[in-house]
Amino acid sequence: MIPFLDGEQLLQDLEALAEFGAEPGPGLNRIAFNPADQDARRWVEAQMRQMGVTVQTDPAGNSIGTYPGTEPELSPIALGSHTDTVPQGGRYDGALGVLAALACVRALHQAGMRTRHPVEVINFVAEEATMSGGTLGSKAMSGSLSPDLVDQPAWDGLPVAQHLRGAGIDPATISQAGRPQGSLAAYLELHVEQGGTLEAAGISIGVVEGIVGIRRYEVIFAGQANHAGTTPMAGRKDALVMAAPFISAVREVALAHNIVGTIGALEVEPGAPNVIPGRVVLQLEIRGLEATILDAAEAELARLAREEGGEFHHLSSKNAVTSDSRLLDALVTACESLNLSYRRMPSGAGHDAMCIADIAPQAMLFVPSRGGISHSPDEYTKPEDCVNGARVLLAALIELDTRLDAKT
Amino acid sequence: MIPFLDGEQLLQDLEALAEFGAEPGPGLNRIAFNPADQDARRWVEAQMRQMGVTVQTDPAGNSIGTYPGTEPELSPIALGSHTDTVPQGGRYDGALGVLAALACVRALHQAGMRTRHPVEVINFVAEEATMSGGTLGSKAMSGSLSPDLVDQPAWDGLPVAQHLRGAGIDPATISQAGRPQGSLAAYLELHVEQGGTLEAAGISIGVVEGIVGIRRYEVIFAGQANHAGTTPMAGRKDALVMAAPFISAVREVALAHNIVGTIGALEVEPGAPNVIPGRVVLQLEIRGLEATILDAAEAELARLAREEGGEFHHLSSKNAVTSDSRLLDALVTACESLNLSYRRMPSGAGHDAMCIADIAPQAMLFVPSRGGISHSPDEYTKPEDCVNGARVLLAALIELDTRLDAKT
Repeated sequence: MIPFLDGEQLLQDLEALAEFGAEPGPGLNRIAFNPADQDARRWVEAQMRQMGVTVQTDPAGNSIGTYPGTEPELSPIALGSHTDTVPQGGRYDGALGVLAALACVRALHQAGMRTRHPVEVINFVAEEATMSGGTLGSKAMSGSLSPDLVDQPAWDGLPVAQHLRGAGIDPATISQAGRPQGSLAAYLELHVEQGGTLEAAGISIGVVEGIVGIRRYEVIFAGQANHAGTTPMAGRKDALVMAAPFISAVREVALAHNIVGTIGALEVEPGAPNVIPGRVVLQLEIRGLEATILDAAEAELARLAREEGGEFHHLSSKNAVTSDSRLLDALVTACESLNLSYRRMPSGAGHDAMCIADIAPQAMLFVPSRGGISHSPDEYTKPEDCVNGARVLLAALIELDTRLDAKT
Repeated sequence: MIPFLDGEQLLQDLEALAEFGAEPGPGLNRIAFNPADQDARRWVEAQMRQMGVTVQTDPAGNSIGTYPGTEPELSPIALGSHTDTVPQGGRYDGALGVLAALACVRALHQAGMRTRHPVEVINFVAEEATMSGGTLGSKAMSGSLSPDLVDQPAWDGLPVAQHLRGAGIDPATISQAGRPQGSLAAYLELHVEQGGTLEAAGISIGVVEGIVGIRRYEVIFAGQANHAGTTPMAGRKDALVMAAPFISAVREVALAHNIVGTIGALEVEPGAPNVIPGRVVLQLEIRGLEATILDAAEAELARLAREEGGEFHHLSSKNAVTSDSRLLDALVTACESLNLSYRRMPSGAGHDAMCIADIAPQAMLFVPSRGGISHSPDEYTKPEDCVNGARVLLAALIELDTRLDAKT
């Protein structure tokens, strides 16, 4: 039986949380570890305690609330996300996932219902890329945090360690937040899509099959800088003219392989109006779920770059993370039982779930982002979509509670 | 009768002048008004005085040597160029023109010969774009110097006025260097090509029909910045992808119109590897002799930019300067009498002659630049080409002396 989830209360919680970091300036500024971020975390913890949840803060600063289950020997099923924002961020990215998790537990609590598994509500710290890369809290929990991260500069140039200390977190002990493989029976995360595909297709729920792999490259076109007045067109080796067909080709290759490909940065040297470009350096990334498809696209892009006279250098590669099939089944069952339209889809962005995949089965669900806009004061998800997402989360939790660790 | 021009002495003078500014660092550093530049000017003036030339320095610092003619009422025919260099410059740009002018007067002097017209040897100051734009001395002489130039920063960030004062020039009086229309019967300038066309074609002399007009534009492609992971290819408005066909088209349009066209600078905003470019701003210039052709190319480029979704803005326009046909005829006659191959061609770069065109009939001649390289320690023109150029200059001077102001 799925208990009633109070959608009105969830929407009120979203309003209430949006008060934290609303000043100064446009958008929300709950930047990890700043006073608004910490006040928001304390407020969320206080909400949890009102519904019979015990709350702990781990050595990384993650808030972990536990609603007890009827079979205490079972590992918990966790629901969560984050309440920090980018500078001038929006109301939904992260916040919706945490408040929906809260709403699920509230629904259980108000119905006087207990699941077999304990249910955890996790509010991860510093998911946004403000602390020298993102997902600090979930990396700490999954044991994948680089030890030298705390010495890196944060978004404002100050060391990460200084921000941690300011929030009462000892940089030396954050690795103790690590939890072993198997310590969670499952992790489910509701998030706004941050793309525009669900809205455009009029679909309520995205069932996230995985988080894309990301490969980054630097492509260099070396031409010959020369006087733009005295060098005839025929004698030129213009690095920007060399690069132009490759810029177009990246889009074609991405479309052909059904992945995304982007040249986000491009530098022209020497960059004077009266000098023929001698060198162009561009930053390319491709993202996709399937390593074999990324391999093929990469090979084609490298070939095309070389055909145009470019050098193709690998910068970094992050493997895709695949969702657990049992969790995906539970999400699909939940959508169907609630009669909500859904689509299986990849996540093009990283999330806490990507890190938690190292220690637990995980899956995510998305709700539509208006216009695909996120990390902006214009970020918006319709109230009914927020409530739908939370209800699917709850239904999937109940479904999983039955299926997982079932006594056969 | 054309007197003998001592080519060996000209080459020795080139060697001697190349000692000024040879230290420190690579290339020559006779940057306008620095000690090496001033020492070089004094050395050139001393050479002039050895051959019966009276030397004056005008209020802008230009050196003007006068070799008297037999008909003192005639305006002088001037030969000249400049001896300043860019930072890390070469031995030939400017220097060859001044030393060839010197060699012409030396030839007259050694032959005990006088022309009807007085002959001036002008060594202009600050031709290179080190003093907030170039051709400071020839602009002052032609009355086209902007009064606020002296307050602008020079190449090293210091005000131009400070450099002028350091060289004993009063910034308040440089405009007094202006000479009226008709004060010169003609101005001829020998220069290295700074492009590679003469060398490639194996031609000795470029007869410069004019100095190209330069038009500069800013073209802006406004797309939609968005997350490079979560935004599908189909829903993108990538400003760099919009700009790519235009980059290729500039080359095609320039080739089709037989002009040059260059995108020398291009900025991508926001310029992060994981963000779809939201805006691309590029700097475009086209150069050509014929205004009607530039008009047509401009119209086509504006149309193409708009077809790709761009905005096309005019930044600046500098009209072409056409050489005087009598001077061109004299140069052609000179080449033919010396049995030297020549080609009529435009100058793609600006020169002192472009400014002097405001007050006198002018023309230029070019000699080959190896590899088209200039403004570099690798700048090189073969000894025989240097001597050929000087001999054409002298023959044209003698020819003009007869033709111009002829008593009919």
